[in-house]
Amino acid sequence: MSKIISGFSKLTKEGKIDWLAQNYFNNQPEIIQIIKQYWNVDEKLQQLHDDFIENTISNFYMPYGVAPNFIINGKEYVIPMVIEESSVVAAAAKVAKYWSTRGGFKTEVISTTKIGQVHFIYAGNKKDLETYFNLNKTELYAATASITRNMEKRGGGILDIELKDKTADLENYYQLHVTFETKDSMGANFINSCLEAIAKKFQKEDIEIIMSILSNYVPECIVKAEVSCPIEDLGGENPEKFAYKFEQAVKIAEIEPYRAVTHNKGIMNGIDAVVLATGNDFRAIESGAHAFAARNGKYSSLTHCEVKNGIFKFWIEIPLALGTVGGLTALHPMARLSLDMMQKPNARDLMQIIAAAGLAQNFAALRALTTKGIQHGHMKMHLMNILNQHNATAQEKESISSFFENKTVSHSAVIEKLEELRKPKINWVDITNETEIRETLGKLSQESKPVFGTMNAQQMIEHLSAVTQIPNGNLKIDVFVEDEKTARRRPFLDTNNEIQPGFRASFLSDTPTPTKFSSIDEAIDDLIIQLRLFFDAFEKDSTRTVVHPFFGELDFEYWKKFQVKHFTHHFKQFGLV
Amino acid sequence: MSKIISGFSKLTKEGKIDWLAQNYFNNQPEIIQIIKQYWNVDEKLQQLHDDFIENTISNFYMPYGVAPNFIINGKEYVIPMVIEESSVVAAAAKVAKYWSTRGGFKTEVISTTKIGQVHFIYAGNKKDLETYFNLNKTELYAATASITRNMEKRGGGILDIELKDKTADLENYYQLHVTFETKDSMGANFINSCLEAIAKKFQKEDIEIIMSILSNYVPECIVKAEVSCPIEDLGGENPEKFAYKFEQAVKIAEIEPYRAVTHNKGIMNGIDAVVLATGNDFRAIESGAHAFAARNGKYSSLTHCEVKNGIFKFWIEIPLALGTVGGLTALHPMARLSLDMMQKPNARDLMQIIAAAGLAQNFAALRALTTKGIQHGHMKMHLMNILNQHNATAQEKESISSFFENKTVSHSAVIEKLEELRKPKINWVDITNETEIRETLGKLSQESKPVFGTMNAQQMIEHLSAVTQIPNGNLKIDVFVEDEKTARRRPFLDTNNEIQPGFRASFLSDTPTPTKFSSIDEAIDDLIIQLRLFFDAFEKDSTRTVVHPFFGELDFEYWKKFQVKHFTHHFKQFGLV
Repeated sequence: MSKIISGFSKLTKEGKIDWLAQNYFNNQPEIIQIIKQYWNVDEKLQQLHDDFIENTISNFYMPYGVAPNFIINGKEYVIPMVIEESSVVAAAAKVAKYWSTRGGFKTEVISTTKIGQVHFIYAGNKKDLETYFNLNKTELYAATASITRNMEKRGGGILDIELKDKTADLENYYQLHVTFETKDSMGANFINSCLEAIAKKFQKEDIEIIMSILSNYVPECIVKAEVSCPIEDLGGENPEKFAYKFEQAVKIAEIEPYRAVTHNKGIMNGIDAVVLATGNDFRAIESGAHAFAARNGKYSSLTHCEVKNGIFKFWIEIPLALGTVGGLTALHPMARLSLDMMQKPNARDLMQIIAAAGLAQNFAALRALTTKGIQHGHMKMHLMNILNQHNATAQEKESISSFFENKTVSHSAVIEKLEELRKPKINWVDITNETEIRETLGKLSQESKPVFGTMNAQQMIEHLSAVTQIPNGNLKIDVFVEDEKTARRRPFLDTNNEIQPGFRASFLSDTPTPTKFSSIDEAIDDLIIQLRLFFDAFEKDSTRTVVHPFFGELDFEYWKKFQVKHFTHHFKQFGLV
Repeated sequence: MSKIISGFSKLTKEGKIDWLAQNYFNNQPEIIQIIKQYWNVDEKLQQLHDDFIENTISNFYMPYGVAPNFIINGKEYVIPMVIEESSVVAAAAKVAKYWSTRGGFKTEVISTTKIGQVHFIYAGNKKDLETYFNLNKTELYAATASITRNMEKRGGGILDIELKDKTADLENYYQLHVTFETKDSMGANFINSCLEAIAKKFQKEDIEIIMSILSNYVPECIVKAEVSCPIEDLGGENPEKFAYKFEQAVKIAEIEPYRAVTHNKGIMNGIDAVVLATGNDFRAIESGAHAFAARNGKYSSLTHCEVKNGIFKFWIEIPLALGTVGGLTALHPMARLSLDMMQKPNARDLMQIIAAAGLAQNFAALRALTTKGIQHGHMKMHLMNILNQHNATAQEKESISSFFENKTVSHSAVIEKLEELRKPKINWVDITNETEIRETLGKLSQESKPVFGTMNAQQMIEHLSAVTQIPNGNLKIDVFVEDEKTARRRPFLDTNNEIQPGFRASFLSDTPTPTKFSSIDEAIDDLIIQLRLFFDAFEKDSTRTVVHPFFGELDFEYWKKFQVKHFTHHFKQFGLV
């Protein structure tokens, strides 16, 4: 096992990177460069970030965006959001603006209690256990005195310690179920330290402590956020229909788990973005929220909607155990900045702001889903990502964005379009411009050499004339092209692509037809005449069609498209365009 | 509403920051500096990151760490982890190393099917709907042809389209339930585009499409990871007991939701860290995993444990819908680096690696919880965070870490210790060193002025001598100190603190005692003699105690402690130390 290493954590950061480069990157020098290009130029600041966790080698940039125009309980907020997914910040900002003229968000904290448990195995008599617990309950509180002192100063502490019998679920299994108030700190360390002190005190010969740990399930640490307005104020073409479909979408999420999971996922896009921006722990928030969504035995929506008596009402109730002091909130300069941006909220304020961000996100998703579909907005950013990946210029971005305005964005379609744009521009011959054609072909002489193919200049001009005589009626050819072939070949004429240099249709002979005229000038005169006849023929009868020996039956529009491509092809053959 | 703004998204990045500074930061210049210090010096690279989402003003650094020594199906891996929580990477690395000598991780992908749904309302006859669906099923597939073409080339596509009757749950509610295989892409855009195309085709007058969207609930996109070994190979003092408690801890998480949520939260610490590092969407993974944990009607553990026939076995089954192509995976240079570090896994490989990371994390948590308790490890990093917050030096960190090795870390205790360290060092007088005492006091003259108090130099020396005569037996004082007072006062002698400058014990008179000797030198000679007698007296009888007028009854050790403090106090009074 050559790549198993001892003492990796004791290597310096440079040492770790060197080992990685050697063992997992074949010593490619660009790997080290990528890792280091993300280091902050301020060494002290970088050291701070390096020390947040173990074995750090670099920083992972998460985009830091802001959503302005939130009004929550009458107060204006700009909400910082850290998220890698596009559309989330734009949706938040849009919905915030929308509700800012419809009363804003109304929020309230329902409760803030947190939970911790000492899990233990006890095989003895239950009555004895209860007696032991009741006799020692005060001692259990006392055991945490040195830990709770500061928390009590801030108005928090242990609210209750209960003994719970769980032996119906698991043999001999009991708990001490402890409820806490942790004020502005998330309280994980505080709760765990209290529990371990309680467990130590509680433990005796016949009580085996399995573990002592806080719970991230916090159904008593709940916040509510709501928006509402008269239906007609919802705006749009048909506010009644909008309200109806929106309500249906929420009801579906309430009863259908497959939908509920994605519905709540969208809510968490908004929630987690602010949780991250403030240095809080999103895994704790996620697990608490989803378990809460499943509390009634079936996974369901975290938001609800009511359309009644002419009023549209939409709200969320979600558990959010957050901190605004302690942990990373004060250590990470950008987390601190986030809190400052929101005017230094306490934990209860932050619960309310984050609930509003989650509700806003869900409103945006449901509005998009029930109207234009989710892909419309997504696709725009998806497109930008693909274009950035291929280093598209501002001009290319603009051109391709407008092209895909009403089309499905797929990676391959975007690349195709980009490649088309990047191809050297084709100077298509204008077949209606006699003067230009005459002037351009006039540059040719008997000495002119073709870039590809075997025709000389005059043979080429006479070839263009001959082919032009098919649609103008002077040259009758007896040819049949199967429908299937036509269907397959003709779409080429709709594209911007040119006939490949060197291409020769299978029905043309290998050697050029001998020249008919005595000079290039005479050949040009003939070509111009045939071209006039071509336009004349279709002008007389715009419905006529003529079979092309390769593309099959073509009308005037398709013949023109063909002629442009054909003329351009041969002009290019002699370097004329 | 002065802070409501229109067209914020159209401002330049600088413009956005200026607006924020003006409206939410009172124009503090340091705010702009904090935001900008996180910009990459490479403008083009910064632009790439700015374009990932909307309204970006900076980058949020997430620590990027690595956990070496993972062996998964016999192959070595270093796993990149992006996470702000301390201990997670260290735990992963530790557990990886542990299992590397016990057979490593065994993983397998159970299935990879994904789900999407078209939700619609239909009030007509169900039979008619079924007929309509069956007649048009092929058309529904055909409607996605242009979208699925590339996916089919890669072996993916639409697997099935089913009509589902959900009218029992919600009036007139039906679904098209579509299953997909998306190979190495996460497939969100692909699935949503297909569904919207299907919905468009399926829609008719009496079918109202409410929405078309993929599901993040993916109970058919499952991976399993496992570790196992004979119980005796688990190591430690008592492997049998370890296995038993570990299994109990898992069983508790299986039956108790309060515990299960935190148990799974810990798993997600490992999962999300790799999901983030590879540019995948952790909200999707979180929602899918927690809903899966609740699939049987009661929120339960994602991991399981079996101790049977002498074998310890521990495994996880978790839904993970991941991508290794598309999205941010290729765009974010550090996400690309993460994939390269893991030897460019395809989506199935990545599922297995991430499942192993999650299992490792849970193993670490349960091992800590069932043995030393979770706080032991947490506290170490908690301590480091507090120390960093207060700019502790390397020396301070070392000294305080060793002090807290077996003590409870609280913010206030750490600060107290840090302040103590930072206090100017006290040069305690060595009362056993006659030569030094004589030399130091020899610097004094009748002109020497005290820094505090009213004694002159000679009075101070004679005062030290007088007090030394209490324990050496030459000065009998009739004094009594209540036990309660002694108990309260004596602990001061155990501290590193000095007697406060200016302090005067209440039993001392306000005016100094007149001098006894004719010169400072004579007073010094006397002091040295009394000091010798002090040591002699206790040498003769080490058990003797003498009452101190303030601290009460003291033995030799406490008298020495007092003497050091008392001498130092008076030496300081004359600027001698």
